[in-house]
Amino acid sequence: MVFESQRIGLLGLGLISGSLARALRASSWQGELIGWGPREPSLARGQALGVIDRYTLDLQQLIHSCDMLVIGAPPMATGELLAKLLPLAEASAHQPIVTDLASIKGWVVGQAHHSYSRFVPGHPIAGSEHSGVEASRDDLFAGREVILTPQQHTDAAATAQVCSMWQLTGARVSEMSLDDHDAALAASSHSPHMVAYALTMALSKDARNPMQHGGGALRDMTRIAGSDPLMWRDVAITNKDALLHAMTLVSDELDILRALIFSDDTAALYDYFNHCRQVRRNHDRVLNPMLDEANKRETKS
Amino acid sequence: MVFESQRIGLLGLGLISGSLARALRASSWQGELIGWGPREPSLARGQALGVIDRYTLDLQQLIHSCDMLVIGAPPMATGELLAKLLPLAEASAHQPIVTDLASIKGWVVGQAHHSYSRFVPGHPIAGSEHSGVEASRDDLFAGREVILTPQQHTDAAATAQVCSMWQLTGARVSEMSLDDHDAALAASSHSPHMVAYALTMALSKDARNPMQHGGGALRDMTRIAGSDPLMWRDVAITNKDALLHAMTLVSDELDILRALIFSDDTAALYDYFNHCRQVRRNHDRVLNPMLDEANKRETKS
Repeated sequence: MVFESQRIGLLGLGLISGSLARALRASSWQGELIGWGPREPSLARGQALGVIDRYTLDLQQLIHSCDMLVIGAPPMATGELLAKLLPLAEASAHQPIVTDLASIKGWVVGQAHHSYSRFVPGHPIAGSEHSGVEASRDDLFAGREVILTPQQHTDAAATAQVCSMWQLTGARVSEMSLDDHDAALAASSHSPHMVAYALTMALSKDARNPMQHGGGALRDMTRIAGSDPLMWRDVAITNKDALLHAMTLVSDELDILRALIFSDDTAALYDYFNHCRQVRRNHDRVLNPMLDEANKRETKS
Repeated sequence: MVFESQRIGLLGLGLISGSLARALRASSWQGELIGWGPREPSLARGQALGVIDRYTLDLQQLIHSCDMLVIGAPPMATGELLAKLLPLAEASAHQPIVTDLASIKGWVVGQAHHSYSRFVPGHPIAGSEHSGVEASRDDLFAGREVILTPQQHTDAAATAQVCSMWQLTGARVSEMSLDDHDAALAASSHSPHMVAYALTMALSKDARNPMQHGGGALRDMTRIAGSDPLMWRDVAITNKDALLHAMTLVSDELDILRALIFSDDTAALYDYFNHCRQVRRNHDRVLNPMLDEANKRETKS
């Protein structure tokens, strides 16, 4: 499927939308990238960085100019923008394709309060503890999964176009239902973020300042606690039920581990850790598409 | 302080002791490295890899040949080896310096059942989810902390020599009491490992197989669940009280977060996440001595 878009409008310019823009520029695609947003300085910075070709502060003009519109905003702002954008897009003569990048799908789609057949909800599973367009990278999506959650009424041709766009960035594209997406991501991303926050807060309350004595393990286990607090507040609230369920499962496992340690059950602890090692290794390729040399050495040994 | 050792004996050859050997070879040090261990094949492999110059299966001969002995073994095996080694070292004519690499200090020193003034307990805070001498690297300790826990009766000259050895690897060396070390490391390393195990186990029990949909966040949050299960079984048992305390603090924070999410307390969630972001950033240099380009860009923006 050829990606046919000539002009992509980016509503909001941050880490993810900026990385999408950079990845498209680094690909064979030759179209134009137009920014829109509430804050002119960040749009001007995006233009200065070469991430977008130009920008406008006029939403109607953006819709008029573009055949593809990508909303890059935290979940709550994405929901608000969709509610405003979808009726305008549908009323326009050329009916541009609309997609978003929010890490919650059910809540966001519900907030749109409007069924536009050329809206294709999407979520690239990639990010960073760094935020802002300055942190954007053209390889952020290489080997990563992008999940599209088209609904029954979604135009298949629009879905195919959004899929083609993401394939240009080096991502793998898959499709899921809204509910399956939100439950899977609650477990694979949202709950791990809450765990990193809980761990960081526990360490920060310790008068010994144990974080001063951290190594690579703590570096990795707290990295995402540096993530954008606004974004993660939104995620926590908008995927509440699935997230609470996933967090409870982690808390339960911590209780199980504490009981095994308390009772000196060395055999069960070994089995527990060994099982986890196998699970982690079985997912090395998904979690770490750019396998490093150490991994390759390990696989050989 | 000049590092005076001419011949270092490595009791056990794995990721950490192998990396120490490689780092010393990559430094200005010109001495000889001799391996000893229960399994000849792994010693022969270490020699073939150039990590050690030669090896012996005779402990008395090793003690006789070396002026510095480094035990590289999981905590329980380290305790057993110390109990055997310290009386022999003390009885020898040249009284070699002895040190270890175990991530638990109180239990290990207790197991030695012998006060040898030239034994300097040590712990390099560096590691990897990969184990075995094949995964050893000469830069594993660059910028990392090595904690020495000399006791009242420990010979200050021996402590200074162990310190000098570690400085050759690019590590920062600090000193702590046995208890302070074990409490700090329970929080900064041992509990984070248990959290990674609990998260990995929770995900592996989910029929949706959410790990298939993981990105960089999950990669980092589960990486250390691939660690050596024998080593972590030992850590969990031998640092039990401090570890259970640290794990309880993390569980408590997870409960607090769940309550905030359950009650839709957006303001408190934002403050919680924002505090964690600041804490994490304040420790970037300790946790990530090799700051990457993205970090530098972020710091400037």
